[in-house]
Amino acid sequence: MSSSTLFSLTLCFLVLFNCCFAQIEQVTSRHGQQQARRRNFQCQLQKINALEPARRIKSEAGVTDIWDENDKQFQCAGVAVIRHRIQQRGLLLPAYSNTPKLVYVEQGRGIQGAVFAGCPETFQSSGKFSRDRSQSSEDQHQKVRQVREGDVVALPSGVADWFYNNGDSPLVLVQLLDTSNPANQLDQDFRNFFLAGNPQRELQSQRSSYQRDQDEGQRGRQDEGEGQRHQQDRHRNVFGGFDEKILAEAFNIDTRLARSIRNEKDNRGIIVRAEHELQVVSPHQSREEEEREIGYRGGRGGGFNGIEETFCTARLKHNINDPERADFFNPRAGRLTIVNSLNLPILRSVQLSVERGVLYPNALMSPHWNMNAHSIIYITRGNGRIQIVGDNGQTIFDGELREGQVVTAPQSFAVVKKAGSQGFEWVSFKTNDNAQVSQLAGRVSTIRGLPVEVVANSFQISREDARRLKNNREEVRVFSPSQSGRSHEIA
Amino acid sequence: MSSSTLFSLTLCFLVLFNCCFAQIEQVTSRHGQQQARRRNFQCQLQKINALEPARRIKSEAGVTDIWDENDKQFQCAGVAVIRHRIQQRGLLLPAYSNTPKLVYVEQGRGIQGAVFAGCPETFQSSGKFSRDRSQSSEDQHQKVRQVREGDVVALPSGVADWFYNNGDSPLVLVQLLDTSNPANQLDQDFRNFFLAGNPQRELQSQRSSYQRDQDEGQRGRQDEGEGQRHQQDRHRNVFGGFDEKILAEAFNIDTRLARSIRNEKDNRGIIVRAEHELQVVSPHQSREEEEREIGYRGGRGGGFNGIEETFCTARLKHNINDPERADFFNPRAGRLTIVNSLNLPILRSVQLSVERGVLYPNALMSPHWNMNAHSIIYITRGNGRIQIVGDNGQTIFDGELREGQVVTAPQSFAVVKKAGSQGFEWVSFKTNDNAQVSQLAGRVSTIRGLPVEVVANSFQISREDARRLKNNREEVRVFSPSQSGRSHEIA
Amino acid sequence: MSSSTLFSLTLCFLVLFNCCFAQIEQVTSRHGQQQARRRNFQCQLQKINALEPARRIKSEAGVTDIWDENDKQFQCAGVAVIRHRIQQRGLLLPAYSNTPKLVYVEQGRGIQGAVFAGCPETFQSSGKFSRDRSQSSEDQHQKVRQVREGDVVALPSGVADWFYNNGDSPLVLVQLLDTSNPANQLDQDFRNFFLAGNPQRELQSQRSSYQRDQDEGQRGRQDEGEGQRHQQDRHRNVFGGFDEKILAEAFNIDTRLARSIRNEKDNRGIIVRAEHELQVVSPHQSREEEEREIGYRGGRGGGFNGIEETFCTARLKHNINDPERADFFNPRAGRLTIVNSLNLPILRSVQLSVERGVLYPNALMSPHWNMNAHSIIYITRGNGRIQIVGDNGQTIFDGELREGQVVTAPQSFAVVKKAGSQGFEWVSFKTNDNAQVSQLAGRVSTIRGLPVEVVANSFQISREDARRLKNNREEVRVFSPSQSGRSHEIA
Repeated sequence: MSSSTLFSLTLCFLVLFNCCFAQIEQVTSRHGQQQARRRNFQCQLQKINALEPARRIKSEAGVTDIWDENDKQFQCAGVAVIRHRIQQRGLLLPAYSNTPKLVYVEQGRGIQGAVFAGCPETFQSSGKFSRDRSQSSEDQHQKVRQVREGDVVALPSGVADWFYNNGDSPLVLVQLLDTSNPANQLDQDFRNFFLAGNPQRELQSQRSSYQRDQDEGQRGRQDEGEGQRHQQDRHRNVFGGFDEKILAEAFNIDTRLARSIRNEKDNRGIIVRAEHELQVVSPHQSREEEEREIGYRGGRGGGFNGIEETFCTARLKHNINDPERADFFNPRAGRLTIVNSLNLPILRSVQLSVERGVLYPNALMSPHWNMNAHSIIYITRGNGRIQIVGDNGQTIFDGELREGQVVTAPQSFAVVKKAGSQGFEWVSFKTNDNAQVSQLAGRVSTIRGLPVEVVANSFQISREDARRLKNNREEVRVFSPSQSGRSHEIA
Repeated sequence: MSSSTLFSLTLCFLVLFNCCFAQIEQVTSRHGQQQARRRNFQCQLQKINALEPARRIKSEAGVTDIWDENDKQFQCAGVAVIRHRIQQRGLLLPAYSNTPKLVYVEQGRGIQGAVFAGCPETFQSSGKFSRDRSQSSEDQHQKVRQVREGDVVALPSGVADWFYNNGDSPLVLVQLLDTSNPANQLDQDFRNFFLAGNPQRELQSQRSSYQRDQDEGQRGRQDEGEGQRHQQDRHRNVFGGFDEKILAEAFNIDTRLARSIRNEKDNRGIIVRAEHELQVVSPHQSREEEEREIGYRGGRGGGFNGIEETFCTARLKHNINDPERADFFNPRAGRLTIVNSLNLPILRSVQLSVERGVLYPNALMSPHWNMNAHSIIYITRGNGRIQIVGDNGQTIFDGELREGQVVTAPQSFAVVKKAGSQGFEWVSFKTNDNAQVSQLAGRVSTIRGLPVEVVANSFQISREDARRLKNNREEVRVFSPSQSGRSHEIA
Repeated sequence: MSSSTLFSLTLCFLVLFNCCFAQIEQVTSRHGQQQARRRNFQCQLQKINALEPARRIKSEAGVTDIWDENDKQFQCAGVAVIRHRIQQRGLLLPAYSNTPKLVYVEQGRGIQGAVFAGCPETFQSSGKFSRDRSQSSEDQHQKVRQVREGDVVALPSGVADWFYNNGDSPLVLVQLLDTSNPANQLDQDFRNFFLAGNPQRELQSQRSSYQRDQDEGQRGRQDEGEGQRHQQDRHRNVFGGFDEKILAEAFNIDTRLARSIRNEKDNRGIIVRAEHELQVVSPHQSREEEEREIGYRGGRGGGFNGIEETFCTARLKHNINDPERADFFNPRAGRLTIVNSLNLPILRSVQLSVERGVLYPNALMSPHWNMNAHSIIYITRGNGRIQIVGDNGQTIFDGELREGQVVTAPQSFAVVKKAGSQGFEWVSFKTNDNAQVSQLAGRVSTIRGLPVEVVANSFQISREDARRLKNNREEVRVFSPSQSGRSHEIA
């Protein structure tokens, strides 16, 4: 009977294993299945440029830089890039948008809040700085997060979020808005729906109006009704469009307050200065705790009672700057860190991922292509050269890049990066939650995977040369610079 | 040893739990992952209108009303809306289409059949009313369903279906056709492929031809070959396009009968009057049975033998009108009932869901936005006011609606509904199988999720006002009207 | 206690069953959920033609035939069709593309290699024919496969692959490139990125440039920068676009060799003759082994050590020509064999499937429609007649087809095939990994699924005729020819 019990135990373990296995496979297979993205534009790229922001919008407590969403590289990739520089005590107003967003914290420290529909208010602020102590000043709200340089924050579409700079230097956020994401059922414009304030007109996407203007230019007609979008000079928050009596009734407030929340005379823009240092309490986390932080789907909701929806306890951020988390590391060349849906599970629903690269002076990345994603590269430090090559062998980009510039490597296009004399650092946003890269050179590469005879015959070179081509570079992805000006042979 | 057995048992339960958990997560995660929809059109909406049908098609035993599929709100949402009013003994001819469909039974009772490819004929009619009793008149066919007012019926694309009115009042069906659904690999036209009859020309979508006309108007050219679609005056059933000899051979029938099924001289239209009361037997279900009815995936096929395909035993309908099934209920305001892939699992493959709202006189719905879906609102009774607000705070719709009108709230756009003096009832079709809504006011809302300090600084209001804004309305989604004309303060 | 152990065992089995069940459902449900495909073009088809290749490109050791990707049937289906005829000792150069590919081996035998990013080099060639025996001539590379007539090979997008003819007759490959596949994030052009050689200009898709020309013709403008794509006369391999110094450094080779791999003066085209018989070793498999070959996801990687990624041990090929594997067989009519994600699991990620049909002389296929896929039909032998019918009953195709011709049956359109006097054989590529077909006639068909009373009233025929229509043809899908010229009645 003992053996039968043992057998049943064994079986149980087997089952347990199978289940886990099954689940892992599910995860894996989902990665295999790229969701369709939408194409309104062509990717016939002959030349693209390194881009700096096209327009700057000043707010009370910061500036917002927007890259030209009509540049053909962004139209091909179906994304938009925005950077906020938030001053001390600056608050980026709560807003939601029709696209998922990835935020990279380039600089500074802050507090971030994301409000998920239907999730409970699990944080309690004591409100000890309330001016009016006569009344209960306790406040309950949804989770807020500390963010710091190097954090990646993922925000699903339709979720309202805000940032506040509680540090002592500017808080700089680089945002990717994925307009071609399956979650966006509207057109290719990104749209920010501000819950408060009086947002500037220039903030909104000008993609559709650009397109229309292009078409109108050709056709010589004026589409009325819709054509007036860019002529409108009042851009209001979402409450601005509601009748104030209905607002008053919905919130059960007086019409004076209802009028207030429409913020019609607010000139502060979208980044406002907090009157007092914002008293939003957030538990400070040790790094060890952060490591143990519960995952997205599997979370048992540390301390919560289980009635929350799945999203409620999702982890939204991951630090990509920490050298210890590097996925590829070469002490003579640099490192590469990847945040995808395997280490930040909410990316599975957002369908985006991020790669952080740090190259030491003169080091280089293996030539490669992105198999299942576009790669939008934002330079964070240093300088370097990037070459991007298309299907006809045409060089669509060959140039030096410096801090703050953006360039896009479209799916399938071959890319090489080489650091300059100060080293080269970047963050690449990728339009797939598990972006895969195929290397052309190095120990793990396509050329290595080919038989020597195929290499020799394909390139019309000798077998010895084919062997050199396959084997001379023993590093993976992050390559050290050649010892000499003319590269030596190992033969 | 007893303890070891106990341990193995415990483990088993653990495993069982894990499995279930894993599966639930799969379901959940799939909801998180919105499938891409297709965009051919822009969503630059400045003003939209409440719409009534644009064209009416008369058939022998009923009329079909079609909303203008070229209205910009439907082009943005990628859907079409059709209403059939079937008289007593009227049969809506069997047809399939290139899009999934949701049908809401607005009025009456009837029988519905959907023929799934490869599924067995599990229903047997005794055929006792056959005129010719000399021969075996037994008949086997696929499952048929009783439908009644308030039922939602989901029909995957490519599945042939028919409806028959066996009640004593008109059977009114409101259909949503989701042309932008991933299941449709053709263009944005909806296409009905009738298996019988001789359908009217006006039935087919005029979206592509409209588009082409628009373009042609601009370009002054005439695309031959394709341009003739709308000039064709013969619209036949699918057999009409086949050679009658091939048909005769395929069905192993004589050519006379083959010619008959092409129905070339049939003038009855798509809703025909049955010669005799249709003798299709369907087991009458008690409500309790219906409740227990097996689900879509998990079904063990009550009474079937297990060789059927998954779809064969899928439940296709769910009554959304039953007050007991309400998901949100406020005795002073009304109720809200939701049918999504969690309670009608076939919606997972159809990627649509439905919401039914009933507001008592002067009650209102919380202002909200649809996070991951468009919402196509069909008014079923009463009157009320709807306001819809876009990303610039522009009011794209502000008007009174009455029975039979349709208006679309695009994804992300903010919406508020307020009942008039007779109350307000509607059904909203949503382009996501698990459409999520984010409330702006009330006990579970975005404003509640924000810290008081963020609310105060964002709107430039005092902390007391911020607290009022957060807390004054304690209801969820369905709000009772204010007691007085001017709303009172709780402070 | 024995009974308690038994109980725990029972429970275990229950759990095991549940798990398996759960997993199967997952698979099933994924099939139910068609991923969105992209639509740039209309499917307003009034007439389509049987197509032969539009252009032929000659290479050193073979020819490549390309069908007109701008034909409206391919634009509607979002695919391109290419055929390579590789002579003996011919090597189709390694390349990857932006779309998944399905390859049908129409003729001959060969070796095929696909290089998956990050997978280990698990094959070892002894290199005994190396000219220079003084140095180690051992070579390690990724898996290579024997292919033979009737094999279907699935290639995910972004994976580099090559073919080599090691047989004694031409190796003929028919390729479907699925440009509207969710895996392609670029536009509707197919793009081949060759790793070696100097590909001919005509190889690349002319879809976008065609579109642009169409538009330019209308608009009378010349888009500079992008408009030059088709005027460029140098098409190079991907290394051709990189700086040769960077290449030298990346591969750690001298610049002479770096210059060589750019192959700028190579005139051999994309199919080159191997200098010597290619010595790539591949284990010859018995058919029994092939049957047992491990599946895609579930594979435990026969002999590998478990650290490979999921794709590394995926099975990529399946023989569809073997009569024993037929899914539908009628000794008097022919057979039908289907390869979908259930028997070739990598198709789940590729989202394509294949059907192989063999009709004996004068036999016919049941009239049917493709519920969730387009069907691109390539005739491999014999002759036959195909009719394709649209939503208005219009016959968009009615013609005789012969070997080497292609015709497309769009989703939902009704199709019938009838073999000529020599029989009729084809392979149909379908744009869904589990394409489903709904029959109109025969034992398992839509007409059978309808109640007799519905059939009679729909077609206005007698119940007896309705019964004939339902029951006279007892075969499934593959129908034997009628005994007489005029079909007999069973009544």
